[in-house]
Amino acid sequence: MNNIKKVGKQTIKLEFPPKIISAFSIVGPKEGEGPLKSYFDEILNDEMCGKESYEKAESDIMYNAIKGAIGRADLKEEDVDYLFAGDLLNQIISSSFAARELSIPFFGLYGACSTMSESLSLGALIMDGGFARHVVCSTSSHFCAAERQFRFPLEYGAQRSKTAQWTVTGSGAMVLGREGDFPEITYVTTGIVKDYGIKDPNNMGAAMAPAAVDTIYAHFKDTGREPEYYDVIATGDLGRVGTKICNNLMLEYGYDIRGNHIDCGDIIFNNETQKTESGGSGCGCSAAVSSGYLYKKIMRKEIKNFLLVSTGALMSTTSSLQGETIPGIAHAIAVEMKGDKLC
Amino acid sequence: MNNIKKVGKQTIKLEFPPKIISAFSIVGPKEGEGPLKSYFDEILNDEMCGKESYEKAESDIMYNAIKGAIGRADLKEEDVDYLFAGDLLNQIISSSFAARELSIPFFGLYGACSTMSESLSLGALIMDGGFARHVVCSTSSHFCAAERQFRFPLEYGAQRSKTAQWTVTGSGAMVLGREGDFPEITYVTTGIVKDYGIKDPNNMGAAMAPAAVDTIYAHFKDTGREPEYYDVIATGDLGRVGTKICNNLMLEYGYDIRGNHIDCGDIIFNNETQKTESGGSGCGCSAAVSSGYLYKKIMRKEIKNFLLVSTGALMSTTSSLQGETIPGIAHAIAVEMKGDKLC
Repeated sequence: MNNIKKVGKQTIKLEFPPKIISAFSIVGPKEGEGPLKSYFDEILNDEMCGKESYEKAESDIMYNAIKGAIGRADLKEEDVDYLFAGDLLNQIISSSFAARELSIPFFGLYGACSTMSESLSLGALIMDGGFARHVVCSTSSHFCAAERQFRFPLEYGAQRSKTAQWTVTGSGAMVLGREGDFPEITYVTTGIVKDYGIKDPNNMGAAMAPAAVDTIYAHFKDTGREPEYYDVIATGDLGRVGTKICNNLMLEYGYDIRGNHIDCGDIIFNNETQKTESGGSGCGCSAAVSSGYLYKKIMRKEIKNFLLVSTGALMSTTSSLQGETIPGIAHAIAVEMKGDKLC
Repeated sequence: MNNIKKVGKQTIKLEFPPKIISAFSIVGPKEGEGPLKSYFDEILNDEMCGKESYEKAESDIMYNAIKGAIGRADLKEEDVDYLFAGDLLNQIISSSFAARELSIPFFGLYGACSTMSESLSLGALIMDGGFARHVVCSTSSHFCAAERQFRFPLEYGAQRSKTAQWTVTGSGAMVLGREGDFPEITYVTTGIVKDYGIKDPNNMGAAMAPAAVDTIYAHFKDTGREPEYYDVIATGDLGRVGTKICNNLMLEYGYDIRGNHIDCGDIIFNNETQKTESGGSGCGCSAAVSSGYLYKKIMRKEIKNFLLVSTGALMSTTSSLQGETIPGIAHAIAVEMKGDKLC
């Protein structure tokens, strides 16, 4: 048998680190008015994408993000060995219907808003194992589709609580490959489900924060790295409320990440002027922020590495109605540009 | 970089084939009265498992199947590197809430009824890549939870069509390891989403049959094997209707699988006396049949190998209400006992 590549309990050190050879991000009109607007590859004028339903629009956004990433890598569909994708909609129909238009072997995933780093984790392991030349990893979400599935139809005009997050309309896709001068995925830290008893689906940041902390802590312990190693530690999507909890809990664990921690949900909107309360959320949030903002920052050599820690709240409307608390999970991947100095 | 282990477009030949070192299956009372009753490890007297909701019962069944498989492999939770699991419920709450009780790094999956072979595919690749010593793969479904989510609450007493399938109450779990005299996963063939325009959610066998055919055909082309190579080719869950379509389509592709083809949905019930119409379905169907029936058959040396081809219908109630057709997918894994003669 071969050797085991695990370091510590939850982390893999990749022996043949796959490279992120392209990325593509698409966001809706509201996200396109936010602070990161100059980093997204496409900003929709019409959040319906010319489709007749929110769900069909979301699927179309993901399909276009995947096609955009494949095209930017100068590849064709048939060059891609696997597609790893998931989303928030029941039975992940955005992903399945996007995959229907693509002739690529497909693994459907569900990790709630942690799905982007879940797909990148599995994609990276599959690349490292020698099972693929190219892999596409993608997730999506849509504000209108998520609101009517998880909360209320928009037409109700329900009031939003201060701790509520705003589901991002958007998608991100990344192509992993084996060659070229691109950032590499060097470590994969896989999350364990954590539940600290939060019951309020309008306070998902608090439900997910302990999971983010658990995974970041495991990553540091397993790799021996300190927070300072990373130029950016990007959780997604704790929002403003969850970010504070996360930073405080990390301090209790002996790590100060306040200097380099950003949260994808916190930075995608101007929460004051855009009335997004605690910030953005949804699979599409960390997907668009990592595929747009973070990927461009590292390609432009403005940062040399980042740790992406997408976070998911694993409840459903049924589990919440049945009085269940909200389990959370977070997966981390380390992305590093080797050998270069920063600009 | 390392070599690519792909053979053909969709298939991996495993270099270090992981072994299925244990399996555990749990089914409901109705499944426990069917033709395979002597093969299941546990038959529930109470389909509620003493819980207050169907959904909580389903999660409990999966948890117990996972614990059963880990215990039977003489392992502890901490010996397991990854859990790959999924189910049919919105946001896969059965799996997430089962994972909450287990301190194991967790990858949530959604492939509808194809999830058992999806989880075994990813588990096998992760083992082969050297990322784990032990992996657990599991799925579940529950008749009552699925009926009220996908069709009607049971209390309505809605009539069932002749092509309808009966969601299996049950779960299966397998532990993959590296050592011992156990059957091995030798090939993984990953499915592409196929849609032949079926719109009737009460005829999922017809929607899934082309996906099964596509994957089985790819498996034969990629490996150079013929149907006769396998003692059993087990699709799941095409039911009676889909099985006929599958066999006829395979003949058109030049392969006659009628001699060794069984369908997990077709054999789990006595469809005449148990009034299950076209047969069983649900993630738990191929999970329980493979973890119960097929695993015991191969361990008892009554068969030397099987090809498991779990099949999934990737629609949601929303996509069907919006007039969408039903995409299907199927993933195949080859399981083989090496070196031994049959009894």
